Amino acid sequence: MNRVVLRVAYEGTAFSGYQVQPGKRTVQSEIEQAFMKIHKGEAIRVHSSGRTDTGVHARGQILHFDTSLTIPTERWPKALNSMLPDDIRVMEAGYVSKDFHSRYDAQKKHYRYRVLAAREEDVFRRNITYHVPYAIDLTRMQEAAEHLIGRYDFSSFCAANTDVQDKVRTLYEITIEREQDEIIFNLIGNGFLYNMVRIIVGTLLEVGAGKREPVELINIRDAKNRTYAGKTAPGHGLFLWQVYYETSLFHHD
Amino acid sequence: MNRVVLRVAYEGTAFSGYQVQPGKRTVQSEIEQAFMKIHKGEAIRVHSSGRTDTGVHARGQILHFDTSLTIPTERWPKALNSMLPDDIRVMEAGYVSKDFHSRYDAQKKHYRYRVLAAREEDVFRRNITYHVPYAIDLTRMQEAAEHLIGRYDFSSFCAANTDVQDKVRTLYEITIEREQDEIIFNLIGNGFLYNMVRIIVGTLLEVGAGKREPVELINIRDAKNRTYAGKTAPGHGLFLWQVYYETSLFHHD
Repeated sequence: MNRVVLRVAYEGTAFSGYQVQPGKRTVQSEIEQAFMKIHKGEAIRVHSSGRTDTGVHARGQILHFDTSLTIPTERWPKALNSMLPDDIRVMEAGYVSKDFHSRYDAQKKHYRYRVLAAREEDVFRRNITYHVPYAIDLTRMQEAAEHLIGRYDFSSFCAANTDVQDKVRTLYEITIEREQDEIIFNLIGNGFLYNMVRIIVGTLLEVGAGKREPVELINIRDAKNRTYAGKTAPGHGLFLWQVYYETSLFHHD
Repeated sequence: MNRVVLRVAYEGTAFSGYQVQPGKRTVQSEIEQAFMKIHKGEAIRVHSSGRTDTGVHARGQILHFDTSLTIPTERWPKALNSMLPDDIRVMEAGYVSKDFHSRYDAQKKHYRYRVLAAREEDVFRRNITYHVPYAIDLTRMQEAAEHLIGRYDFSSFCAANTDVQDKVRTLYEITIEREQDEIIFNLIGNGFLYNMVRIIVGTLLEVGAGKREPVELINIRDAKNRTYAGKTAPGHGLFLWQVYYETSLFHHD
């Protein structure tokens, strides 16, 4: 058996999230069905770096699975893509050692959140940006974000309905930049709680809109209570952008 | 009765083109259904600046229709959008005189064509760009395009299955520019034959890829024969970008 690792991109719009759910179209079930075809009916279990919610996208989801097939590395993407629907694309593949695990070995994750900051909506980006038609102050949001960088208990930024006990995570970086008519949030951390990126972005947008002061983030953070933070920004602006491991998984030309 | 003009954007992906066809989901039929609801069941015929094909998008399609309703200009978009599916958006509205016609009064049209010029595909732009993974030379295409500017019989760039007699059109401008990982074609003319933009772009891409010489465009143009030109580029890279009339249709702040 060989262990294969994949970088996979998907547009989350038409999926009920990543994880298999009975009767729902999910990323995992589409991938496992495609893999079963390539393996002539043999069921293949695919492991991910973590699930994503309904409507959430991925540019750099990392998956691994075990296979008896020995296809050359560069042919895996084409072979799998020919079986996959066009809203899921395998971008890269590699062989890894049998003790590699896409979830347990992940050291850092980079999420991106795209806000369309324009008066008019854009029908071509309706599923991949969150449209905010009012004025947003970048500097205020950047100032607020500084209070979240570091190792903290992020309970205030975690959906109430979670069963994770340890809510301490480290946020290494939050950048907020304007790119044409969009505001792009990049968050890099060692791990993220349920809805954490979306609650942080939703809260920062309230600061950017002048509804909260940047310094309030200190109190919100220290309250360790979800009710202190702002609204959860919608899933369709969010992208799992990159997952980092100890060593590079893919060999580039 | 009032005559209302609209600027409408739509993503063509899930439509069998603009024009009503029995049993098919088209832009026109979705719009007329929505308009019927607003008019309490009264059938409303909508007239466009011209049809678009399956998969083709619009940022600036112009429509007009007659109505007994007298809704303030700025409220029309919201009223109509609340009834429309989210892949069609009314962007602007205005009242025009009873002799205005969206098709007959159109003086110029601007089409845009987006090519994703990158090795990797992009799942998020799969429906709104044509992916070309090989190297494309912009200068060669720009040189070739010069031979198409002016008043010509564009038979070589018209789908063979058309019943239009007069194939003389004037192309005012073709610009070809790189924007990050895309190549953007802009074509402005007084009118376009069936598939004309897509055949021009397809032929220019063959020049850009080195399969044809820029000067060949003279022969292709003068042959007045579809078989001389290159392949028709796919519809999903094409956008009806703007339609020009003698006077501005919408009043801006």
